[in-house]
Amino acid sequence: MASSPTTMMKMKLYDSSPPSSTAAARLLPLLRRHHIHFRSSVGPFHNPSSLRTIITRSAFSSSSVITAAMTSETSVKVIDGKKVAKDIRDEIAAEISRMKDSIGVVPGLAVILVGERRDSATYVRNKKKACEAVGIKSYEVCLPENSTEEEVLKYISGFNDDPIVHGILVQLPLPSHMNEQKILNAVCIEKDVDGFHPLNIGRLAMRGREPLFVPCTPKGCIELLHRYNVEIKGKRAVVVGRSNIVGMPAALLLQREDATVSIVHSRTKNPEEITRQADIIISAVGQPNMVRGSWVKPGAVIIDVGINPVEDTTNPRGYRLVGDVCYEEASKIASAITPVPGGVGPMTIAMLLSNTLLSAKRIHNFK
Amino acid sequence: MASSPTTMMKMKLYDSSPPSSTAAARLLPLLRRHHIHFRSSVGPFHNPSSLRTIITRSAFSSSSVITAAMTSETSVKVIDGKKVAKDIRDEIAAEISRMKDSIGVVPGLAVILVGERRDSATYVRNKKKACEAVGIKSYEVCLPENSTEEEVLKYISGFNDDPIVHGILVQLPLPSHMNEQKILNAVCIEKDVDGFHPLNIGRLAMRGREPLFVPCTPKGCIELLHRYNVEIKGKRAVVVGRSNIVGMPAALLLQREDATVSIVHSRTKNPEEITRQADIIISAVGQPNMVRGSWVKPGAVIIDVGINPVEDTTNPRGYRLVGDVCYEEASKIASAITPVPGGVGPMTIAMLLSNTLLSAKRIHNFK
Repeated sequence: MASSPTTMMKMKLYDSSPPSSTAAARLLPLLRRHHIHFRSSVGPFHNPSSLRTIITRSAFSSSSVITAAMTSETSVKVIDGKKVAKDIRDEIAAEISRMKDSIGVVPGLAVILVGERRDSATYVRNKKKACEAVGIKSYEVCLPENSTEEEVLKYISGFNDDPIVHGILVQLPLPSHMNEQKILNAVCIEKDVDGFHPLNIGRLAMRGREPLFVPCTPKGCIELLHRYNVEIKGKRAVVVGRSNIVGMPAALLLQREDATVSIVHSRTKNPEEITRQADIIISAVGQPNMVRGSWVKPGAVIIDVGINPVEDTTNPRGYRLVGDVCYEEASKIASAITPVPGGVGPMTIAMLLSNTLLSAKRIHNFK
Repeated sequence: MASSPTTMMKMKLYDSSPPSSTAAARLLPLLRRHHIHFRSSVGPFHNPSSLRTIITRSAFSSSSVITAAMTSETSVKVIDGKKVAKDIRDEIAAEISRMKDSIGVVPGLAVILVGERRDSATYVRNKKKACEAVGIKSYEVCLPENSTEEEVLKYISGFNDDPIVHGILVQLPLPSHMNEQKILNAVCIEKDVDGFHPLNIGRLAMRGREPLFVPCTPKGCIELLHRYNVEIKGKRAVVVGRSNIVGMPAALLLQREDATVSIVHSRTKNPEEITRQADIIISAVGQPNMVRGSWVKPGAVIIDVGINPVEDTTNPRGYRLVGDVCYEEASKIASAITPVPGGVGPMTIAMLLSNTLLSAKRIHNFK
């Protein structure tokens, strides 16, 4: 969102809703290349279950299966979100091409931007580029800062009714004079590709119900686990942070896949005692390096959603990005870990594209 | 529901949705008197926060505050759900009388019963009696087993539109030829006093959102904790069972009150290791005596939702009711515990009355 690096660094702890850094994670474009070092993997995992996405699984089908036999090694597998996100975008592009050829339909994503925030403009531009690259048609509306709620609602209503639009995204934050909840609720649930509608969240929480869309960042986290064949069923999972956009839905997703889930948050005493029991840690709190090595059980798998800028005078920008997890320490103990940047970050837009395609397929009953 | 004691005893483990015994808990009328023994209390609790109910708090305001100073004692406080439920019904009756005097409105609850199941008929009769006792007008529709979905939907639609009805309840289970989800979804959310609508559950899960109604049994569990001044904030809470009607919403409620929550279920390995860390255990699984003394941390507070019939040839009925928790063992270790019967059971109908009053007050904007 709009927080400057300094603001974000000062940001208090981890269950603000939404925390700037996880919002940033959600919105950040494909990040620049990170030094990825693959080594032999560890961790007692096998037999992945499948996320209900349009995505087929191929990227890591043989070489990257994390098996119990390898647990005695002390090396870490770096979970390459950039590579997985690219694979997913390629798969989406292929699906869109197939749909276009079969029924002549191309998925459409409408993005509404209100005001002139530079960061928001960048996010919108990156989404547009990502859409174009896979063949999704994007429709942008840029409204001036002083627009009225009614004007925004009018555009949402238009997109709700427009059959060439399959997903609608309102770029946040909205100007302060607008009621964000009212505006987001106006997006019809069939096109709510962000998946934040309470009805979606309710269905996510309930056994036997299916959400129309899974929120993008938590969906990206679980997809990384799936692509790396990390078994979730029966595992202890700890989610650090309970925001509406990442922590809470991530916990619900893990529970749907039969993990035993605990949520750690700002009111938790001794969070490290709980994280140390986890086979899987998903951290989404916006606190640089909060999860230390001592918080991690040997062989755990770590998904780090935080993207936190910290001062770095050696960097031309004056800052660099780090996760919620102290990578240097945790990577010595975990069996697999996402880097920051290059981990969860690139997955968020990939999942937005995935949700948009899913919506178009559902609306047109295309299998 | 309709399960016979034998069926219920054979019922497999704890995350069926809904498990018969917790459904029974939800539906069971005020239970016969249980031997309640109050002793001095233990447990590090103070400063209760308030459930958003219409209920004022008086019952245990002085004598029953559970304080840290008492932790060294080895006696247990028996949480008297029968007494609390009676207090709540009295408070509801007073509120209804005040509303009737002020604006001439009496809350109305419509109950739809389809078929001739004896147990369902008993539950409906008990609800009717409980309504009458507090001044809620109840409206019953009894339809024959071979009714069509359309007939049921027609009644729901009528109640949705009827201004004298503030709550609508469809007695479950419905005959097998009916689509339960479709019928329940037809109840308008403003009158869904059961609180099971996914939109309600979504709002319960989300920070900054408020559900219209909290499901009755989990609401009753939290109300017991409040009435006994058990502090929830910052405490470790473990919910055993993840059903849509008890376990999952109970976990969401505990989390809303800033507990650190873990959910244990049928896929959890070594559940006792996790429950042993809990300051508060809520068990809703339908397995007689599953939670043993060794599962309980000294000083923990236990809310036992299970109402399980077990064979008892010394009992004229041939069975007696026991909880999910082995009371004999756990009561020696916990600081407070609900008995079965006489614990959570009586709270469910009290919370249904509470939700119906809440609905009437909201619809008529009566403070």
